[in-house]
Amino acid sequence: MKNNTRVSNAIIRRLPRYRRYLGDLRSRGVKKISSNELSELIGYTASQIRQDLNTFGGFGQQGYGYSVDHLYAEINKILGLDREYKTVVVGVGHLGQAITNHILNYKFGFSIVGLFDVNPTIVGLAINGVKVQNSSELEDYVRNNNIDIGIICCGKDNAQEVADTLVRGGVEGIWNFAPIDLDIPERIAIENVHLSESLHTLSFLISSKEKENR
Amino acid sequence: MKNNTRVSNAIIRRLPRYRRYLGDLRSRGVKKISSNELSELIGYTASQIRQDLNTFGGFGQQGYGYSVDHLYAEINKILGLDREYKTVVVGVGHLGQAITNHILNYKFGFSIVGLFDVNPTIVGLAINGVKVQNSSELEDYVRNNNIDIGIICCGKDNAQEVADTLVRGGVEGIWNFAPIDLDIPERIAIENVHLSESLHTLSFLISSKEKENR
Repeated sequence: MKNNTRVSNAIIRRLPRYRRYLGDLRSRGVKKISSNELSELIGYTASQIRQDLNTFGGFGQQGYGYSVDHLYAEINKILGLDREYKTVVVGVGHLGQAITNHILNYKFGFSIVGLFDVNPTIVGLAINGVKVQNSSELEDYVRNNNIDIGIICCGKDNAQEVADTLVRGGVEGIWNFAPIDLDIPERIAIENVHLSESLHTLSFLISSKEKENR
Repeated sequence: MKNNTRVSNAIIRRLPRYRRYLGDLRSRGVKKISSNELSELIGYTASQIRQDLNTFGGFGQQGYGYSVDHLYAEINKILGLDREYKTVVVGVGHLGQAITNHILNYKFGFSIVGLFDVNPTIVGLAINGVKVQNSSELEDYVRNNNIDIGIICCGKDNAQEVADTLVRGGVEGIWNFAPIDLDIPERIAIENVHLSESLHTLSFLISSKEKENR
């Protein structure tokens, strides 16, 4: 791998998608694949695919294509999936529980070790075997358990305070589902899932297609 | 507005974010704003902002800046938010309920009119006042009620079949949370929320920052 600290945002968005398709190919027992075949599956052009994979040093062999296992393993390394991440979920409503289930079912590289909420009717309950703790204990818990990732599933009004607490506790990254942009130090990684913005992208696309189809 | 049918994907992603900040400004009673002030808030450069808004015809006046109300209304139009969308949610687990709550709380342009699931222990229950119906009734319901958007919150194994049913019923767009790429006709709009890919982007960013901070 050449250098993955300065990679365009567009490639970062494509890599997890390569990984998903390669994972499907692996589970179907496919051993090798050409950039043209990958192109048919994924929908990017073959030249785009070769260019993307070259950014990280290139893994193909002329006339052979890519080894699916090798490429999958290399992409995992690039994505930082060659290690384990301990996560906590803050806000255990439907969204928090959906995310918890997603991670527990997924079982690759991520574990949920703590659930936190401020609602006294939820604190103390066990969800998928993990006990919900009071959010007042969050900072100490994150620090004492070397938590890597905080997942923010609470409402927008508390999200910045939760982020500050996670940062003080020492997380390396935040996965934020609250509909605000958090103010966090540069050294902390952040990934937002802004549902309303995704829905508005859909309404934009619908409205564009209506104009095309008129 | 010049023409919004051929706009780069990057701008489409930025518009909902402009809308969110403008909505916050409106609710704080702010009447006008310059591209420099918007830049400080949103984090894009002022020249990027002027260029983006020019794509749609430009709404600013030299020396005055943008009228917040006007710009907000125009961006709503561009995003197709000057109409109502009737939606159905298919798959009423935690994720489906979280999305339902999100839309019901949001109350802008989108209404949930139908909930569907295959699980007999859920079918017949009322969630936020909406009765859960059996997925076998989905196609007729979509057709008879002129549903605009189908929201797929079921598992990956059923997602394509659900998408086919929604398309036959006549939806204009699909908001897909299942971790697959759906095969749908070109005329239908699609927006995916792929949670695993978002999480892998986060692990990539964490791993990149570790290398930077070393």
